[in-house]
Amino acid sequence: MTVKILRLGHRPSRDKRVTTHLLLAARALGASGAIYTGVKDDQLEKRIQGINLSWGGCFEISFAKDWSKEIKSWKKHGKVVHLTMYGLSIKKVIEEIRRDESDKLIIVGGAKVPGEVFNIADWNVSITSQPHSEVSALAIFLHELFDGNELNLTFEKARLRIVPQGQGKKVIESQDNV
Amino acid sequence: MTVKILRLGHRPSRDKRVTTHLLLAARALGASGAIYTGVKDDQLEKRIQGINLSWGGCFEISFAKDWSKEIKSWKKHGKVVHLTMYGLSIKKVIEEIRRDESDKLIIVGGAKVPGEVFNIADWNVSITSQPHSEVSALAIFLHELFDGNELNLTFEKARLRIVPQGQGKKVIESQDNV
Repeated sequence: MTVKILRLGHRPSRDKRVTTHLLLAARALGASGAIYTGVKDDQLEKRIQGINLSWGGCFEISFAKDWSKEIKSWKKHGKVVHLTMYGLSIKKVIEEIRRDESDKLIIVGGAKVPGEVFNIADWNVSITSQPHSEVSALAIFLHELFDGNELNLTFEKARLRIVPQGQGKKVIESQDNV
Repeated sequence: MTVKILRLGHRPSRDKRVTTHLLLAARALGASGAIYTGVKDDQLEKRIQGINLSWGGCFEISFAKDWSKEIKSWKKHGKVVHLTMYGLSIKKVIEEIRRDESDKLIIVGGAKVPGEVFNIADWNVSITSQPHSEVSALAIFLHELFDGNELNLTFEKARLRIVPQGQGKKVIESQDNV
């Protein structure tokens, strides 16, 4: 199952850090890439590509002008999950989503999500019905979708690797990719 | 078990939205409050208190000048978890942390975390050894700590309540608290 994120309505001035956090969470937690709409942001793309170079893997990032086209094209082969505080509890739907083996596009809203997104999604899913963050919502969703296995991922061709420690920091720099 | 967050090194101009997301995630996912250090930010505090008023509960937010004092005072009755990409995998330590019934202070770094924090923490815990976000790291940590039960929390005295829907939005406004 391929999992991609669709981030709606990115505004470089306002959302720079939150979108970066969102995409880094998507990458670290097993999504294969992200598409974002709103305003094209070359710095954002470079930042994510820089993380791939240092920390490995091949997380893709691309900009799309028209979210509606992206969703329609995705629905030809896969299904769509929309994360929203108004949706059904993840506890109620995660088993069904996990069992469905088709590719998944996870829609994560920006400022205002068009009503059409609620209709076009195969699942509107809430991670609590309280306001919090698209970053925390996506994290818990991916953690549940991959059933915790995303915590064991290895990222190929990493220049830097952390060796987990009880105290302090240990980072190994690969000579192969320098 | 009482769980509080200690957010280190908040900078209002740069971290405004990320700290807001972090504290809202802490609130929605069952922490009882947060202490933050760095620069005092009245707007941040008002924003969180406004969320309590609309969405219920009594999540506390307070500013502290000296993180070291806060940790030392916490350690008189509780234990300290530091979330860091350099720490031991959550999979390895979460059972032990769950079993330990003392109150928990969850330290979440800002720009630069002083080395002393790694030494003073009872557990240095990583949510993957990849760079992502303090918001996603905290979300998965709380979700694991509370074993998913945080998704069923109710927030007392809420003015607004969402009724989860497969499609669309349904919000009930309480007349009691208007």
